[in-house]
Amino acid sequence: MTGTLFLVPNTLDFGVVAGTPPPLSDDLPLGVIRTAARLTHWVAENAKTTRAFLKRVDAVVPLTQNLQSVQIVELPRPQKGAKHAAPAPNLDALLTPPLQGVDMGLISEAGLPAVADPGAALVEAAHRRGIKVVPLSGPSSLMLALSASGLNGQSFAFVGYLPVEATERGARIRELEALSRRHGQTQLVIETPYRNEALLEALLGTLAPSTRLSISCGLTLPSGWTRTDTVARWRGGASTIPKDVPAVFGLLA
Amino acid sequence: MTGTLFLVPNTLDFGVVAGTPPPLSDDLPLGVIRTAARLTHWVAENAKTTRAFLKRVDAVVPLTQNLQSVQIVELPRPQKGAKHAAPAPNLDALLTPPLQGVDMGLISEAGLPAVADPGAALVEAAHRRGIKVVPLSGPSSLMLALSASGLNGQSFAFVGYLPVEATERGARIRELEALSRRHGQTQLVIETPYRNEALLEALLGTLAPSTRLSISCGLTLPSGWTRTDTVARWRGGASTIPKDVPAVFGLLA
Repeated sequence: MTGTLFLVPNTLDFGVVAGTPPPLSDDLPLGVIRTAARLTHWVAENAKTTRAFLKRVDAVVPLTQNLQSVQIVELPRPQKGAKHAAPAPNLDALLTPPLQGVDMGLISEAGLPAVADPGAALVEAAHRRGIKVVPLSGPSSLMLALSASGLNGQSFAFVGYLPVEATERGARIRELEALSRRHGQTQLVIETPYRNEALLEALLGTLAPSTRLSISCGLTLPSGWTRTDTVARWRGGASTIPKDVPAVFGLLA
Repeated sequence: MTGTLFLVPNTLDFGVVAGTPPPLSDDLPLGVIRTAARLTHWVAENAKTTRAFLKRVDAVVPLTQNLQSVQIVELPRPQKGAKHAAPAPNLDALLTPPLQGVDMGLISEAGLPAVADPGAALVEAAHRRGIKVVPLSGPSSLMLALSASGLNGQSFAFVGYLPVEATERGARIRELEALSRRHGQTQLVIETPYRNEALLEALLGTLAPSTRLSISCGLTLPSGWTRTDTVARWRGGASTIPKDVPAVFGLLA
């Protein structure tokens, strides 16, 4: 009998909140916290932030095992810009606990594991080995941004990061706008926070005036905001965006 | 000073769970339940299920106002098959509470409002009227399914429902498979539960043997499951799917 691979959501406040974070039960369902508290084996994008997460779990529901003896193994770092590829053979080794009947958690730096992060290959490997996969509810910055955008929520796509190089980036923005127009489909992208402003400038400089642009910044944080407007009106206003807070960008042509 | 439009998530168990549902705090963050408990004005996809939701809220955090005096207004029903269109003028009337400074909630039948449901037009109207929009974290069946699928979570699209008519549906499935192959993009679709089996048959009869197909059925329910496999292997196994439980279908060619 194999164990289960639980996909455990993380909060969206990674390192952004100053001071003591609120109780984890404010941001995650108790059912999720209870499951996290009893898992003794984890695969994580980042072991250090996972330990911080488990401390927050412990403050709500005591861990069944000392944090020191919880096993946390980091996912191999993906190659920058690599396409979604077949899982590397060593991923199977990460699945030893569930293969031996022990439940395991997969957790990301923020939000749902395997969405907009490198965890999907491990989930794929779990399916190939016949391990049961159970996703637990939590915040998804992409869906919160989409929901708050007022753009089309019945057809949408997420395409990750745009190229950094200006000419390529401009071409990609035009391509996404054309796709959006053809299919009536909201296109979502993300950016490393310190490039938020550069991306906003590129979007405003490239998109048609009538295209609607939505930005959600600092989702779930008290300072968070969402603004949706036509590109023409974005251009007319003072449009600033913090350099140190994650943002999601959506467009609908 | 206008009020805020809170986008309040609902659970994914609508009508599917027999008997008494678990405490709402098992499935939603306490922060969300606290906000829901103090909202006196709601716009909902369905007033009856919203009252049932508020009873579950009240059992965890007492409502600040009697349920009988909470105002719940239903969203106008969208025309079947209508494309995302400019909001009808009467949507502005629904925004009277926030325009008068009173916070309001928008809630859907399941999951996040304005994602895969008709709420986006109201959110758009709120942005046009300068009303602050705050999305609250909760379960998104699409993201849970994507996360559990092990398919590409760094590029994906949701395209809603497929055509019901067999020839059109086959053509649309081939189109989505081609898009998936060209862009390495996971394509997600949903179906009315009683047509789950017909959709599965159509997918297995149309997709290439090497295309990966993932189905998540009954997400967040104890009986929920996710299976991801190549179409060839789906064809080889006994593939049944309940007629009365919501499912999300994902494919990656």
